[in-house]
Amino acid sequence: MRESASTVVSPAAEAQGQPRINRRQAAKVRTRQKVLDAARGLFAERGYEPATIRDIAKGAGMSTGAVFANFQDKAELFEAVLTEDMAGLADVMKNGAGDGTTRGRLVNALSAGYHGSIDQLPLFQAIVARSWFQPVAAETRQRAATEGLTGVISDILRSGIGAGDLKQDADIALLTELTWDAYLSNYRRAAYDGWSVEQLADHIGRQVDTLLAGVSTR
Amino acid sequence: MRESASTVVSPAAEAQGQPRINRRQAAKVRTRQKVLDAARGLFAERGYEPATIRDIAKGAGMSTGAVFANFQDKAELFEAVLTEDMAGLADVMKNGAGDGTTRGRLVNALSAGYHGSIDQLPLFQAIVARSWFQPVAAETRQRAATEGLTGVISDILRSGIGAGDLKQDADIALLTELTWDAYLSNYRRAAYDGWSVEQLADHIGRQVDTLLAGVSTR
Repeated sequence: MRESASTVVSPAAEAQGQPRINRRQAAKVRTRQKVLDAARGLFAERGYEPATIRDIAKGAGMSTGAVFANFQDKAELFEAVLTEDMAGLADVMKNGAGDGTTRGRLVNALSAGYHGSIDQLPLFQAIVARSWFQPVAAETRQRAATEGLTGVISDILRSGIGAGDLKQDADIALLTELTWDAYLSNYRRAAYDGWSVEQLADHIGRQVDTLLAGVSTR
Repeated sequence: MRESASTVVSPAAEAQGQPRINRRQAAKVRTRQKVLDAARGLFAERGYEPATIRDIAKGAGMSTGAVFANFQDKAELFEAVLTEDMAGLADVMKNGAGDGTTRGRLVNALSAGYHGSIDQLPLFQAIVARSWFQPVAAETRQRAATEGLTGVISDILRSGIGAGDLKQDADIALLTELTWDAYLSNYRRAAYDGWSVEQLADHIGRQVDTLLAGVSTR
């Protein structure tokens, strides 16, 4: 998206005689982003069901028609927010893993995840809530959007086998699933018990110790 | 509730000269139960937010006023359904544990839980969805309602230490939490992947093996 926005002022594009189209494209991208940001705010504030397209449009300062020109319905809008945010969070986790033992890398990555998402806690809550009660097609798309995140966990575990930290027959899929469930569940402690990022990081560390106890070689 | 309903035909109560009051009480209990059943059906069908008091009243064949005479609002109604169902499920789990190893008892109890709740899967989904996006006070009451369930898990683990199956320093609270998170998360497999109770039971068995690996003495 940033790339097409930048073509507006790109001399190369001007030279190709496409500035008008690119300006229009850029406006479209900006409009889309404005809708996404307004939607993100409202989903975080109210949750999925009570957030209406009418109020999202109002928040973005445009008509509902302008929203519908960009997104077919609320579900598509929600998934666009989710996809954008989960992709960003996967990068944060991946970059947070750093070097060290498998245990250390996993806890670093997950702690970085908490750091990078705690400001969006209510949105995260709305996302998980919705994941429990949505059409199968929406669930399938949501899983695709979170694959980047679970992928970070399974990559670290797989490297752990390669590095000799974990047993060869460690069940990566099962461990990834249990780690992800624990990671997600901890957000409820932040939401309802006021846990800080440090408390979350400490807790996931103890959970990872339990989960890896049977497959650690050291 | 059944006890007070039975007093209607109780000779002892008749002898005390309270049949009219008891009949009225019994009618109130029946009305309350009718509302609860209608609400349970609608929450399961639509989830929490889209289920309206108006439609719950319609489903129960009464006025919204009659519903409000029994429950202050939708949240209270939802919690009453939840409390009733979770208490029943805790009994099912406890009775399902049986004898045997700690691992065996835990897996038996959790499998019994799946058996006893799979018919109510959509309601369960609505409950978990709501648990992610509700006022703190509602969350506190919901935790109290599910304490019976997590209590079954921690009781089995604690007995496991006593029986010498688990190490003395096993962190019961942490293990209970991880087991409960895994147990809950598996419902999504039933909801979206069509997993049978047998598949759920098999899966929680493998998860329990992973969770207990570090604390088993055998």
